[in-house]
Amino acid sequence: MGPGPSDVSPRVLNAMARSTIGHLDPAFVSLMDETKALLQYAFQTANSLTLPVSAPGSAGMEACFVNLVEPGDKVIICSNGVFGKRMHENVIRCGGEAIIIESSWGEQTDADELEATLKGHPEVKAVAMVHAETSTGVRNDIEKLCHIAKQHNCLTIVDAVTSLGGIELYVDEWQIDAVYAGSQKCLSCIPGISPVSFSEHAVAAIRKRKYPVQSWFLDMNLIMGYWGEGKRAYHHTAPVNSIYALHESLLILTEEGLENAWTRHTRLHNKLVSGLEGLGLSMLVKAEARLPQLNTVCVLDGVDEAKVRTTLLNEFNLEVGAGLGDLAGKVWRIGLMGHGCSDRNVDYCLAALKTVLK
Amino acid sequence: MGPGPSDVSPRVLNAMARSTIGHLDPAFVSLMDETKALLQYAFQTANSLTLPVSAPGSAGMEACFVNLVEPGDKVIICSNGVFGKRMHENVIRCGGEAIIIESSWGEQTDADELEATLKGHPEVKAVAMVHAETSTGVRNDIEKLCHIAKQHNCLTIVDAVTSLGGIELYVDEWQIDAVYAGSQKCLSCIPGISPVSFSEHAVAAIRKRKYPVQSWFLDMNLIMGYWGEGKRAYHHTAPVNSIYALHESLLILTEEGLENAWTRHTRLHNKLVSGLEGLGLSMLVKAEARLPQLNTVCVLDGVDEAKVRTTLLNEFNLEVGAGLGDLAGKVWRIGLMGHGCSDRNVDYCLAALKTVLK
Repeated sequence: MGPGPSDVSPRVLNAMARSTIGHLDPAFVSLMDETKALLQYAFQTANSLTLPVSAPGSAGMEACFVNLVEPGDKVIICSNGVFGKRMHENVIRCGGEAIIIESSWGEQTDADELEATLKGHPEVKAVAMVHAETSTGVRNDIEKLCHIAKQHNCLTIVDAVTSLGGIELYVDEWQIDAVYAGSQKCLSCIPGISPVSFSEHAVAAIRKRKYPVQSWFLDMNLIMGYWGEGKRAYHHTAPVNSIYALHESLLILTEEGLENAWTRHTRLHNKLVSGLEGLGLSMLVKAEARLPQLNTVCVLDGVDEAKVRTTLLNEFNLEVGAGLGDLAGKVWRIGLMGHGCSDRNVDYCLAALKTVLK
Repeated sequence: MGPGPSDVSPRVLNAMARSTIGHLDPAFVSLMDETKALLQYAFQTANSLTLPVSAPGSAGMEACFVNLVEPGDKVIICSNGVFGKRMHENVIRCGGEAIIIESSWGEQTDADELEATLKGHPEVKAVAMVHAETSTGVRNDIEKLCHIAKQHNCLTIVDAVTSLGGIELYVDEWQIDAVYAGSQKCLSCIPGISPVSFSEHAVAAIRKRKYPVQSWFLDMNLIMGYWGEGKRAYHHTAPVNSIYALHESLLILTEEGLENAWTRHTRLHNKLVSGLEGLGLSMLVKAEARLPQLNTVCVLDGVDEAKVRTTLLNEFNLEVGAGLGDLAGKVWRIGLMGHGCSDRNVDYCLAALKTVLK
């Protein structure tokens, strides 16, 4: 019950242990097509360029930035946690110029501030934002932020690492041009593979670049040749077994139904928060901005937060996350993600915390 | 028996299916330390910066280039196949200047030509070469090439994707400064993770860079904080299950012994070649430059090479690789890698080919 990797479903572990076949084997190509369709459902998109990047979420992030940001491009970053800062690093390393809208850790990005910033910078090419900030437990209102960005004709780049499968996300309806997600959060798949999706606007921007994409490995112009329609051209050897695992995790999500999964996360979040408050604990984030899948709990004065985590891990076999960056030592992060988001886990976590904090 | 991914050992598949634990869990950190020590043995190196990159071999290649090549740096590429060309792409995308020593596909790089090129270009920073060229089946004499490069004070970068675990490779003795390998070739591990190792010279070059590494995901300055000594700093979520798999595949290699594994590959290669010649087939590469783990067989005139591969796959459940690039349609590539390099497989392959070619 940490911030991820989340508990992986036994079905996913079994799927992953199937025999490895070739990355150009016709049976594998069929599985790729199915995986793509399942990802389109999970993202709620018809985007043809929807696929898993063969590396963790941080590489999914980098895939979006290196393909869309060219030297000299201006990008607004809505930053209110670790992953906003990481986006900033990406823009710098692409030779772009970042304009940062910084909000306090634990607060949402202010839509009015984005509007004002865009008015002052009509030359901005893209606006980047984090849907579910795993470092703080804040849900940013990306529907509103994307709407504003599109009114100013900007591309929108969204970090959905922790949101995919856990909370409402409508890539097409919300006009998201590039989105990357994690496998190891609400999909309860193994870590190491990152679903991404690019809109037609994004694909057009990638195709008319002035400079080559600085990463050969993440160059979507080349990856399209392997994941696209028709004959598959070898680019790199796909992580075959990780794709078996992703495929199975997406099947599980589809069987439950996306809306049902979102509802389950919300219901168990409410149960967890109510239990935590019963133990005298309080949440960092105000109720309307909380992520159900990542619960940031304030450490009580005088409590040794690291010792609590170690005791939970060693005596209860229960992982809870530490605070990152500005929040180090101040909060615990309790994940309720995918397969691990269950009544049983909430009950167990509350009982364990009650014992340890006594 | 294609060019990889090779047949994965059941032990590796089982190890990979263990429950996913956190990437900062003390039990996982111990496994990381063991994996590092096992990799040092496989590479025959004492390099402290030895670890698996969380992505396929192409990202391992990119990790070496983006960390060592800065804008304006000159790099000699010894190119005689697909992977030499890919190195060239990497140098360009790093803003470096590549000087290509091009040899025919199927031939080795000429050491005298490297010597002469270095004499004409004293400003060169690094020399890059492919140990086992998977596209042609050629073994380059990298011991000799590295020796020459070091005499001219260059850094040496080696592609060992298909060589690690299959043929002699002595990273320290041969003075290799940066090396990347594949998991899915002679280690018979699943694809998607790439062992790399950097010498002290390479680490010094990375630390004194003028420009930041263009990839955040592959920046060794940051990755050292997670894979180095002491407290582990979160960089990205490690592909936990893939590391279980790599660890198991390296244990298998260690149990057999590196020298024994090399001997086995050579013995079965000789058996395969002799059988192929008995069927009237000939090898593309001259005997002294052949890779035991990747056998490039010339297609006989009048034979439909694609049909042979399809029949082998569909009727014999046997994968054999097609030619790439300049060799497309002209050769088959038969892999004898790791777990798949066995008497049983050689016998089966020869019997199947005999039937299909009749």
